[in-house]
Amino acid sequence: MKLYIGNKNYSTWSLRPWILLAKSDISFDEIKLPLDTPQFYTALESVTPTRKVPCLTDGELTVWDSLAICEYINDTYLSGQAWPEDPQEKAKARSLAAEMHSGFSALRSEAPMNIRAARMVTLSDAAQQDLKRIEAIFTEQMMQFADHGGWLFGQYSIADAMFAPVVMRLRTYQIRLGEMAQKYVDHVLSCPVLQQWIDAALQETEIVAADEAGEPCQE
Amino acid sequence: MKLYIGNKNYSTWSLRPWILLAKSDISFDEIKLPLDTPQFYTALESVTPTRKVPCLTDGELTVWDSLAICEYINDTYLSGQAWPEDPQEKAKARSLAAEMHSGFSALRSEAPMNIRAARMVTLSDAAQQDLKRIEAIFTEQMMQFADHGGWLFGQYSIADAMFAPVVMRLRTYQIRLGEMAQKYVDHVLSCPVLQQWIDAALQETEIVAADEAGEPCQE
Ligand SMILES: N[C@@H](CCC(=O)N[C@@H](CS)C(=O)NCC(=O)O)C(=O)O
Ligand SMILES: N[C@@H](CCC(=O)N[C@@H](CS)C(=O)NCC(=O)O)C(=O)O
Repeated sequence: MKLYIGNKNYSTWSLRPWILLAKSDISFDEIKLPLDTPQFYTALESVTPTRKVPCLTDGELTVWDSLAICEYINDTYLSGQAWPEDPQEKAKARSLAAEMHSGFSALRSEAPMNIRAARMVTLSDAAQQDLKRIEAIFTEQMMQFADHGGWLFGQYSIADAMFAPVVMRLRTYQIRLGEMAQKYVDHVLSCPVLQQWIDAALQETEIVAADEAGEPCQE
Repeated sequence: MKLYIGNKNYSTWSLRPWILLAKSDISFDEIKLPLDTPQFYTALESVTPTRKVPCLTDGELTVWDSLAICEYINDTYLSGQAWPEDPQEKAKARSLAAEMHSGFSALRSEAPMNIRAARMVTLSDAAQQDLKRIEAIFTEQMMQFADHGGWLFGQYSIADAMFAPVVMRLRTYQIRLGEMAQKYVDHVLSCPVLQQWIDAALQETEIVAADEAGEPCQE
């Protein structure tokens, strides 16, 4: 299997299937391409019709888009265990994953993932609404699962993979959530697999201007 | 099962799970709420945390977001048959469904679904790129499946449900695609189940100003 991804410092969509694979101990070749360069588009030309990352190839098969890749991995390599087993929880986990997949556009554009940076941003009302919803989700899930595994649904699931980038945004823009929600954030940040991604991001030197938002923090 | 939806004239997200259920002959109660009214938000308050449609309740269980609902229906009522059986085709169908779920934002905002209208719009470059990608998808799938069922993957799948609203947009804004792609558009428009949705949309009288784009067509 080959997973095509973008810069680890910036590429939120890439992080999602990467962390699902890495957390699940599934071996794969990582092909990292620098976003916003001719090389990026050339390399993807014969791989994916969208010329976006992430994209996964598995033998003859190609699957693109973060959520579709996660579902594929789950079906093919994890016997469905990357969703909660209980049907009610599974429906909720899928709802949250899909909500993240097509929502939160204000927060996403105003607070881009930028792992090596520490910044301050003034968020619009829409982005603050997004943030409130994130906080409500984390709080609700931690009321139930903080002491039973610590992930959104106890055991690690695709929902956690989908929400990993937003946790990185909170870190960059120094946003603290309420106590229960913050428990989840801290749990995610203490994950050694995520730490590997962060360490690799810190080695990178490319700058994508469009993702450099906010003002540097004063120490 | 109860499916909460918005106005049939306008609500693209609602159409997706509705048509999957209806095409699959699964019985459900439809609860239609007028978008952009206090009644809409009040009715959804105790149903879904996002206060958006579509939302499905099935006994104790709640699932929201079009794509999550489609996956739930497929898992629970269709034994997985709403995706192609072949793993390669399934991966592609999921990729296309996910691509639609989080993409095509320019086309979506410039050419809102408005079933009863006939309009002309001038699309931005970004929206024209979206349109080109739609055309490429339809063309590629019809090369393979026009004579083998006529849906994107031959048999009806979640991919067709996800792309149904874009076909309605093409109709409103009088956009014709190339021959092979147009075959798919015509196939979709000839579907009696979609026709039921259209007929109901034509009965509606509510106006959502934000979705009234473009200039009326001259006859
Ligand atoms: N909905 C897609 C979004 C993929 C996406 O937008 N990827 C970005 C990088 S994070 C990309 O490849 N951008 C390159 C471009 O648009 O030119 C997914 O979930 O995978
Ligand atoms: N990603 C969601 C989007 C749902 C959505 O935005 N629904 C619109 C109607 S088509 C809505 O309920 N809007 C009401 C609002 O945002 O206030 C899905 O796939 O279901």
